[in-house]
Amino acid sequence: MLVLLDQTRLPAEEVELVCTDVPALVAAIQSLAVRGAPLLGIAGAYGVALAAARGFDVADAAEQLAHARPTAVNLAYGVRRVEEAYKAAMARSGNGSQRAAAQALAEARALHREDAEASARLSEYGNELLGELVPGGGLRLLTHCNTGVLVSGGQGTALGVVRAVHQAGELRKLWVDETRPLLQGARLTAYEAAREGMPYSVLSDNAAGSLFAEGEVDAVLVGADRIAADGAVANKVGTYPLAVLARHHEVPFVVVAPVTTVDLTTERGSDIEVEQRPGHEVTEIPPVHRTGGGPETGGGIPLAPVGAQAYNPAFDVTPPDLVTAIVTDRGVISPVTADTVAELCSTSRKGTSRTRNGMMNA
Amino acid sequence: MLVLLDQTRLPAEEVELVCTDVPALVAAIQSLAVRGAPLLGIAGAYGVALAAARGFDVADAAEQLAHARPTAVNLAYGVRRVEEAYKAAMARSGNGSQRAAAQALAEARALHREDAEASARLSEYGNELLGELVPGGGLRLLTHCNTGVLVSGGQGTALGVVRAVHQAGELRKLWVDETRPLLQGARLTAYEAAREGMPYSVLSDNAAGSLFAEGEVDAVLVGADRIAADGAVANKVGTYPLAVLARHHEVPFVVVAPVTTVDLTTERGSDIEVEQRPGHEVTEIPPVHRTGGGPETGGGIPLAPVGAQAYNPAFDVTPPDLVTAIVTDRGVISPVTADTVAELCSTSRKGTSRTRNGMMNA
Repeated sequence: MLVLLDQTRLPAEEVELVCTDVPALVAAIQSLAVRGAPLLGIAGAYGVALAAARGFDVADAAEQLAHARPTAVNLAYGVRRVEEAYKAAMARSGNGSQRAAAQALAEARALHREDAEASARLSEYGNELLGELVPGGGLRLLTHCNTGVLVSGGQGTALGVVRAVHQAGELRKLWVDETRPLLQGARLTAYEAAREGMPYSVLSDNAAGSLFAEGEVDAVLVGADRIAADGAVANKVGTYPLAVLARHHEVPFVVVAPVTTVDLTTERGSDIEVEQRPGHEVTEIPPVHRTGGGPETGGGIPLAPVGAQAYNPAFDVTPPDLVTAIVTDRGVISPVTADTVAELCSTSRKGTSRTRNGMMNA
Repeated sequence: MLVLLDQTRLPAEEVELVCTDVPALVAAIQSLAVRGAPLLGIAGAYGVALAAARGFDVADAAEQLAHARPTAVNLAYGVRRVEEAYKAAMARSGNGSQRAAAQALAEARALHREDAEASARLSEYGNELLGELVPGGGLRLLTHCNTGVLVSGGQGTALGVVRAVHQAGELRKLWVDETRPLLQGARLTAYEAAREGMPYSVLSDNAAGSLFAEGEVDAVLVGADRIAADGAVANKVGTYPLAVLARHHEVPFVVVAPVTTVDLTTERGSDIEVEQRPGHEVTEIPPVHRTGGGPETGGGIPLAPVGAQAYNPAFDVTPPDLVTAIVTDRGVISPVTADTVAELCSTSRKGTSRTRNGMMNA
């Protein structure tokens, strides 16, 4: 079985969600009980391992999990990687499915460990980059959605970098976009920031413009759910408006994501499928916030007139020319272009520092 | 006494709020039970008339009301205008305070009527302007906050224009920004749009960027709380990011406000005092949404960790160069500059159409 922290219940309570089969995990992914690009990859990987261990149809499980949500490429990556490991083990050992299941679990654990390692490198490279982009320290960083320990095998992506800046004593302020409609910033990033003792304030996403206008933002740091071959970045809805504001105010806009987030098979940003989610996420506050643990049978608290329709894309796409830099576990690319993305992806891990410095100085 | 529609209860229920003295009205203004720039002017005017009729200290009442909220200039305008009428009547009639109170009420009613007339002209000029800016009809308009019949003696400002477009059969879609933190879009604009049978969808403010990127917005229409002499526009927080997005996508950004919203004594946008409101408006959903009418004694529903700080400016300021046009009841100015604002303010009402066409063709 898989034991997950139900993120829909945070910060009110820390509830464990136990998934004993694949449909339960698919439901947890679709309800966002488990969410965030790197964590989706880890959860998908363990889901395939679970199917293998329990003797379910692994190909079918992989298919269901890979398509549970369309935008974050990490999910399909984690699923396919463990499925391949399972299939290869099956091919080697004939029908020794127990051995193949063990191999699938080992692969999922390897991916989990690699994510933690990638996360550590992201924090290091991101912290270094901020030192170059905004000399002088005492940083005021704006972030969107939640990209910390809750979504990672390690410290996370963008919020992992913020944590590194904080641990270096250089975080003057973390501005936390509440991130409507599902409030991952107010609920989850604030929860992590409070636990870490960071100086932070939550704001309605609308108020970010005022912060830029007042010169209160030194850099924007966000994660990514998919990076196309042209460098376009799909991330939580509201990211693109921040990128436009950052450009208008000449503030660095930095994306932090493991290199596995790059999907070279998606040629352009416009090719990225953006998940459309139900309107009630916008027009209602879900019942869990009301009861903090009661049954979730009732409807939410209405915020709009009964019957109001809502437009609710879960993600948006930021074109590469608005992205100052992408920090990956293989190094930093800046400027972000199809060429620098291709070079990044063709670089072996060993070449990291050369790639990074080469591109930064280009 | 003053009977007001309590806007904090909408759309769940239509509750009347009765104010029998000035402190009650000040509280209603500060809690946003009564809100919206033109309506604040009307409420302030009637508040002074109420003080006069009930024999309260009129100067003191005017002082309290004028400072109940700092940003919307209409509030102080309505208050001072009725106070002046009262003082002039007192000066004429010696101590005939009953007569002066009648004069104050007459002045408040005149202001109320003028607001309705101004609103009708705003709708007409705004509709005409959109026809010029976006030829071909079938408009997809994005609006922010609430600027309709709920805030006006007539049809409102920006939403009044939308209504005129709708009545002309030319509204293809009204995109309603939910307008965090207090959700005036989701609660109030959606309520008005639904009552009028407009085709509309609510969106989290974060999703506006996606609409622009997809080419789904023909024009942005917003109201204003104060327009400085340089043409800078203070309006509900989240307006400025929309203006930046509109400019980035070359979409017209149109402000609709009666000329009384222009405050020539505020020289520049940076001189506008922006009201900072309590953080709990961001970190909690107010209890009224939970119970739909229960006692409001408890705290709200927490959306962020206990103790989370929030940055909560109620307004932001959009510089004039991002504003395509300002539609007023004396005509339209475009481009928006200190000169066109000054010319608008020096124009008598009779000169309306000349001013408008002159500037539009300039």
